[in-house]
Amino acid sequence: MKDIRIDDMTGNMVIYSSYRNKRPHDNRKVSVKVEEKPVHSETCPFCVGNEHMCGESQDEISLDDKWLVKSVLNKFPILDMSTDEIYGQHEVIVESTRHNAGYFEMGQDEFANIFKIYQMRSKALSQVEGISYINIFKNSGANSGASLDHPHSQIISMNVIPPELEKEIRVAQEFYDDVEENLYEYIIAQEQENSTRIIRDSKYFIVFVPYACRYSGEVRLVQKTDLAISEWDDEHIKDLSYIFDHLFKKWFAYNGDIAFNMLVHTYPLDKDYRDIFRNHIHIIPRKYNFGGFELSTDLFVCGLEPEDLASELRF
Amino acid sequence: MKDIRIDDMTGNMVIYSSYRNKRPHDNRKVSVKVEEKPVHSETCPFCVGNEHMCGESQDEISLDDKWLVKSVLNKFPILDMSTDEIYGQHEVIVESTRHNAGYFEMGQDEFANIFKIYQMRSKALSQVEGISYINIFKNSGANSGASLDHPHSQIISMNVIPPELEKEIRVAQEFYDDVEENLYEYIIAQEQENSTRIIRDSKYFIVFVPYACRYSGEVRLVQKTDLAISEWDDEHIKDLSYIFDHLFKKWFAYNGDIAFNMLVHTYPLDKDYRDIFRNHIHIIPRKYNFGGFELSTDLFVCGLEPEDLASELRF
Repeated sequence: MKDIRIDDMTGNMVIYSSYRNKRPHDNRKVSVKVEEKPVHSETCPFCVGNEHMCGESQDEISLDDKWLVKSVLNKFPILDMSTDEIYGQHEVIVESTRHNAGYFEMGQDEFANIFKIYQMRSKALSQVEGISYINIFKNSGANSGASLDHPHSQIISMNVIPPELEKEIRVAQEFYDDVEENLYEYIIAQEQENSTRIIRDSKYFIVFVPYACRYSGEVRLVQKTDLAISEWDDEHIKDLSYIFDHLFKKWFAYNGDIAFNMLVHTYPLDKDYRDIFRNHIHIIPRKYNFGGFELSTDLFVCGLEPEDLASELRF
Repeated sequence: MKDIRIDDMTGNMVIYSSYRNKRPHDNRKVSVKVEEKPVHSETCPFCVGNEHMCGESQDEISLDDKWLVKSVLNKFPILDMSTDEIYGQHEVIVESTRHNAGYFEMGQDEFANIFKIYQMRSKALSQVEGISYINIFKNSGANSGASLDHPHSQIISMNVIPPELEKEIRVAQEFYDDVEENLYEYIIAQEQENSTRIIRDSKYFIVFVPYACRYSGEVRLVQKTDLAISEWDDEHIKDLSYIFDHLFKKWFAYNGDIAFNMLVHTYPLDKDYRDIFRNHIHIIPRKYNFGGFELSTDLFVCGLEPEDLASELRF
């Protein structure tokens, strides 16, 4: 059975092919090595005691004068403030003092500190003149593009709105122009009505497996309220920390210690997007390598039924 | 030094960052295993004697009643003819009888047979009612998405024009509407004038490293004439075979036996695109894994100067 599905947030076309995931390719999954990692590494720039090896600290959350999470300048920035054409500040958020920590085993207090420092840095970086977007993402595991093991995410302020966000905004604007409704509120209502793709329907966030997405196994979180990250109150952070704690433990039970990316898509700063848009997070497993078909056509092939994945991850 | 570059064939925005490729990530290159492979494998469906293990043969080029290259039905098709919404025929082109053959060591006669069977299958598949596009691509190496080692490429007829082609066509149409010139002829003239990015300027094809592209290390071939693949004469095939022979030996000397994808972009079949478009081939090394920044923004970061790569690959 093959059908075409449209990802309602991005407009991307996806080919669903339930038969396709039986091909030999499935024997070539990206290898999942569960490596024993030390709790502290002498050579890791993000470990305690090695502060001189990483970029200058921009903000920290501390206990008894010792940092728990911190944001430091990226020593190999994608963007910096040196050029006029494209600029921004690229920071690395060191998410834990434990070198071998992972989202799969972190506690809610640790997640809360991560989200708090996202908020602190979002606020600070969005004050800088000319900045139009604050981009937050995480690479976990070598196959995700991560260059260092120590758990970290990244925050980059940008003077441009990235093309992927422009696309999401355009899709949402077109929807609003058509039916005078916020696309994200519509999606939340649709998922609630259908219910089979929902992983968790919480007070401030809904977590679900999208009906169509490019990367098999993606999980999405959509914020139900229209607060920017800089406006989150403790209740939002508590709710999100509860979700991450449970979601990643279920994810680990299902996927093992696979590489993944987390993409936090927030409001651009050039104007008010609350009518049409909502904060949302894409969590994308990096289990397979896409091939020439995807590169050549920009069509992605998915063999996993969203309802099946949702039932595995539900909590 | 950072700047933004636009890929003139796709309109894609790319961040060039010469400093970026010095980051620790570079120590995490996708591993290049030069495995000793046998010339024949008992379990490989594409090896001689195992014809019963693969899909039904659609076309062959033979010598003394033995096939040299052949096109067989893909047993795990992305598309088939069973559904109305999206359909097409998915064939695998077995490029050699040698299980361990590779583009890095094939001769010009072998390449000529591959291009001839591309031509035969393009002709046959484009006769089928409703087919709008013939998609040819190759995955080589596990990191490219290939599921089998035996050298092969793939051809898929499609009832839709894939989004990536629609994008290239749109960019070319806009250029034509602006200046009444074929974008690809303009690109050829620009590369010839600049000359530093050219790898080979041959009679029917030009080979160069694009000024901007998403995947560091991409090489492009553009056909100078407006013939469709189904119209290629022996001279075109001879020229292209000469180029592939020399290009991939230089490529191997520079990159080693890395995974790569080859994307053959041809005229869609719904109308005549000769005024605005030309056949072209993207050859993309799969050396690095892209990360969350690229997934989140659709902005790609490139650290390799095209002139440097062109001088390494020139012949």
